Amino acid sequence: MGDRPCKTYPKTPLETANTPALDELTCHGISGIMDTIKPGIRPGSDTAHLAIFGYDPYIYYKGRGAFEAIGAGVDVKPGEIALRANFATIDSNEIILDRRAGRSIPEGDEFAKLLANLTLNRAPNVKPLFIHTVEHRGVLKLQGPHLSSAISNMDPDVENTKVLKCYPLDGSPEAKRTAEIINEFFQKTKEILNNSPLNKARKQQNLPLVNALLLRGAGITPKLRTLPEIYNIHPACICGAPLYRGVAKIVGMTIITVPEATGTIKTNTLAKGKAALDHLNENDFIFIHVKGTDSASHDGNYANKVMMIEKIDAMVKLLLDNINLEETIIAITADHADPICVRDHTADPVPITIAGNSCLSDDIQKFSERTCAKGGLGRIRGLDIMPILMDLIDHTKKFGA
Amino acid sequence: MGDRPCKTYPKTPLETANTPALDELTCHGISGIMDTIKPGIRPGSDTAHLAIFGYDPYIYYKGRGAFEAIGAGVDVKPGEIALRANFATIDSNEIILDRRAGRSIPEGDEFAKLLANLTLNRAPNVKPLFIHTVEHRGVLKLQGPHLSSAISNMDPDVENTKVLKCYPLDGSPEAKRTAEIINEFFQKTKEILNNSPLNKARKQQNLPLVNALLLRGAGITPKLRTLPEIYNIHPACICGAPLYRGVAKIVGMTIITVPEATGTIKTNTLAKGKAALDHLNENDFIFIHVKGTDSASHDGNYANKVMMIEKIDAMVKLLLDNINLEETIIAITADHADPICVRDHTADPVPITIAGNSCLSDDIQKFSERTCAKGGLGRIRGLDIMPILMDLIDHTKKFGA
Repeated sequence: MGDRPCKTYPKTPLETANTPALDELTCHGISGIMDTIKPGIRPGSDTAHLAIFGYDPYIYYKGRGAFEAIGAGVDVKPGEIALRANFATIDSNEIILDRRAGRSIPEGDEFAKLLANLTLNRAPNVKPLFIHTVEHRGVLKLQGPHLSSAISNMDPDVENTKVLKCYPLDGSPEAKRTAEIINEFFQKTKEILNNSPLNKARKQQNLPLVNALLLRGAGITPKLRTLPEIYNIHPACICGAPLYRGVAKIVGMTIITVPEATGTIKTNTLAKGKAALDHLNENDFIFIHVKGTDSASHDGNYANKVMMIEKIDAMVKLLLDNINLEETIIAITADHADPICVRDHTADPVPITIAGNSCLSDDIQKFSERTCAKGGLGRIRGLDIMPILMDLIDHTKKFGA
Repeated sequence: MGDRPCKTYPKTPLETANTPALDELTCHGISGIMDTIKPGIRPGSDTAHLAIFGYDPYIYYKGRGAFEAIGAGVDVKPGEIALRANFATIDSNEIILDRRAGRSIPEGDEFAKLLANLTLNRAPNVKPLFIHTVEHRGVLKLQGPHLSSAISNMDPDVENTKVLKCYPLDGSPEAKRTAEIINEFFQKTKEILNNSPLNKARKQQNLPLVNALLLRGAGITPKLRTLPEIYNIHPACICGAPLYRGVAKIVGMTIITVPEATGTIKTNTLAKGKAALDHLNENDFIFIHVKGTDSASHDGNYANKVMMIEKIDAMVKLLLDNINLEETIIAITADHADPICVRDHTADPVPITIAGNSCLSDDIQKFSERTCAKGGLGRIRGLDIMPILMDLIDHTKKFGA
């Protein structure tokens, strides 16, 4: 949600959007700015969420793969590693023609089935489990002994270059072995996919071939004390995309499924807000994530970002209309800035407002990057937000006596 | 001193109190808010004081017992452990009837004498030394080999429940042995106290029996470099309660005794201020602690808290009238918030003002939680305050060249 002004847009999307509910919340609450990780550190969505849930990403971040896998319903147990995977189109020299093989792949599940019984010469005791999730995306889990997530990405992130070899990122025999497994897995899937009749059908329809799996983001599940264990709360998460669901599950949140929460700019924010209201009795902490502002930012689409902020505002209005701030606290923030002019995450601090009976209120009346910077909360960090919220709802213990 | 607004009291005690001197100081100085430990962490009085004296409590906090003992004049050397102790009234099933045995115990010293020659079967080479301090309170020191402070509290902190057994908090043989010693000490003191003629007299006067010692807060003296060693200063402390005196002594402060400083809401803040003025020539750093605002908060007594703040203001007026801010710096803050509506310490940041010739002044004109949040000092932490003050009086060294 956070942004910077630029020559084309001297006002940030938050400054342009019409946000009566966010502003009302700001009037009731205390505001500030937050560096999700540290000043000047550009957060990924995964590390940012770990931090705002209270887990130092420098300690607990073990790669993105496990979050994606767990978010997609694939358990990643100790010793197992998981990777993100893209169906892609490559030529005979392994030059990437389309990193997403056209993005829409209705036969995704059928392609995945073809890879179900693949065995690896390098490691017959390692079982690769690939599942297709949405569009061109999927996750690969490796199950077996002596694996390591210290391996490089095969996906170069750009097209018209060659698929990268996977190589070990440390000197361990496990990393070497795992990189070899991944390289073999890539070659075998390439063969199987190329020979599939599904691709003949796609060729006839002039669709890009699905003839490679680009792998990246190897990760393991971090070991941590969950939020229920730390704070004795019953937290829940409402979100569309698998990543956030994965992080939320790992830190001990229940997932509330909202079919209209799509993780895209078409998401139904009111359905998310309603789901939160419906679960306030059984959950004393509900995390709602809205992805669309970030997607609009990556696309450099200012109008869509403003539109998404107004959709978030409508959700906040629904919450304010149905929640008694004497009993419940509402906090609004972003996991990172993603300025329209940069089209990627930056380290700009994000605005934050906390409203509820137990908060000191300040005199800030508008929710935006510049106004919140003058608020009573000052400049905090992502790791601070959970302790602050838990203190306000009386779920923390004294340190000392 | 810090608080939060609530439905009954939309203004905090600091906002309600008449504080011309604190406000004048604020006009001269630079203000901000301070998280004594970290945002969202509820400080104990012991950990908070370590932090504001510049010692990270996550490193230097070793339990409260040693601070209390040292504050009461009992030295706690390396290897020795100290515990807080309450005289209490229990029934024959060890159910606690009165955690304080009526609170006022004029025979406290005589009861303590009865326990002077107690020997322990479990550890004949460990010498228990119990001394009575004020009211129902005392400290127990264990002297001897193989002791550990990693033991649990016997005092459940509530009445009408059974006295807890003491158990080890880690797997060490020392902790197991110390827990056994404490359990035996409890049983022996129970017997001795029960059989004492002092209790017959109390019974005749219908006073609660003094028939148990509830033990808690086992601690050792942390090893640290003192403030004189770190900053080449001659610091002194003026306070009523033993805890603060204990922490102050350990960090190298001289204790200035002020008989009228009682550590209660009846304390004479003007006598404290006068004592500080009297010692400004020999001490280049004087710490004055006023406990009454916290006691009023624990009692949920808004009027008393306002009254105490006004007593602090009178002390600040005395200081301002007699101190030249061209030569001396005055800093005002709290060790933690204790909101009237919560009646216990919370993690809300506390206001802070530093006034003196070497400080940048800002435009804040009133000392309170909300006004100071807009000050030029921003949001700092407890660990920052000593280095900031020492820098302002030119007692710090350059890091690097």
